[in-house]
Amino acid sequence: MPRTSDARERIVSTAARLFLERSYQAVGVDELCQSADVRKGSFYHYFSSKSELGKAVIDLHAHAFNKQLSGSVATTPTEKLHAIPDAIGAIQSVLEAQFGRAVGCPFGNFAAELSTTDDDLRRHLADRLAAMERHLAAVCHDAAAAGALRAGTDPDRLAHALLAQYQGIILLAKLNDSGVSALAPALHDFIDGYVVDGSASAVSQRARAAQAPAAPEPDPDATPHPSPQE
Amino acid sequence: MPRTSDARERIVSTAARLFLERSYQAVGVDELCQSADVRKGSFYHYFSSKSELGKAVIDLHAHAFNKQLSGSVATTPTEKLHAIPDAIGAIQSVLEAQFGRAVGCPFGNFAAELSTTDDDLRRHLADRLAAMERHLAAVCHDAAAAGALRAGTDPDRLAHALLAQYQGIILLAKLNDSGVSALAPALHDFIDGYVVDGSASAVSQRARAAQAPAAPEPDPDATPHPSPQE
Repeated sequence: MPRTSDARERIVSTAARLFLERSYQAVGVDELCQSADVRKGSFYHYFSSKSELGKAVIDLHAHAFNKQLSGSVATTPTEKLHAIPDAIGAIQSVLEAQFGRAVGCPFGNFAAELSTTDDDLRRHLADRLAAMERHLAAVCHDAAAAGALRAGTDPDRLAHALLAQYQGIILLAKLNDSGVSALAPALHDFIDGYVVDGSASAVSQRARAAQAPAAPEPDPDATPHPSPQE
Repeated sequence: MPRTSDARERIVSTAARLFLERSYQAVGVDELCQSADVRKGSFYHYFSSKSELGKAVIDLHAHAFNKQLSGSVATTPTEKLHAIPDAIGAIQSVLEAQFGRAVGCPFGNFAAELSTTDDDLRRHLADRLAAMERHLAAVCHDAAAAGALRAGTDPDRLAHALLAQYQGIILLAKLNDSGVSALAPALHDFIDGYVVDGSASAVSQRARAAQAPAAPEPDPDATPHPSPQE
């Protein structure tokens, strides 16, 4: 018998799973309540609307992403840049193992589906991704200050391009049903293109890393989606 | 009184508009028929399902994109690379003028929303984007053969990264409601990063182009979405 005190958490994690399996609009509140084993009254006790639940799901994913990233042991600016693909690759691998295929980036899925129809949810998600972009920009500025970026590279533009590349390649992997194993290597390549020396050395480091079991362990809290059996 | 012979075209162009305004799943067949001024029987005469209509909408957008791109006067491989952001920018500007905001890439919107739930539609869209990626790859190979790409640049990977970048920055513009004017310049920057010489000359050409009214005219057929008043 599920504990009532878990209800909010169950609703959010169930929604996170169902939205990734299908989409936000494909899943109704009735189905959500049934899958999470909560009553509809309980749902509306915690969330005034499905849109408010959407925000909580976004925050769950943002927390998981930040936790995964903060677990990195990277120290130099270039290592910190490369820690981003590692975090994305680890999270995407966990999602692929759970769902049996690439299901996209939770943030990108929401952005594509809801930006034109739910401005409140759009702004909430935009705020979360803006924070992520600020983090990327800070790392890029550190790399520039350390002389690690190619001449002429604007750190803020690189941060935006990296965020866009991250969104774009995950979207294409979802579309092509091509698995997620190529995502982190492609993002490492992308970063190498902006690192000093075209980066012969960085590229070879990556090539070595790809051959070794060097992928970071996914953080348990970075996988907040209960399996369908739970 | 609308002509019956136009019914299929009206259904497709109305669907293209409504799907961009909101999303595929947010628009039902009943509403589509009402907006397109056709009877439901007529809809199912042309389309066995909403999914079949989705394919026709994708083909409409693919046709418009190819027509816009084929109108380019680019001759050198580098110019042909830069013609891609010009085509994307022109199409996105037309959509922004019509909808009053960035509404995303029609292909990316479908990919994010339906890849996990409609495998038939997913494969249809993946085929269309694969054709686009093959075109990009051919241009990248020509640029590599002409010595225009930085040493170590893999043309096929560059084509995939360019497609991903195109999808990612449009998705972020839609999320951030930040307008589409920065999209083509950002993609030109992205390409310049892979062109020989870090491309001081290419960058300055772009800077000049940005100051001149040099954006390509949108092709009328590249705007297949009737305005709400039509």
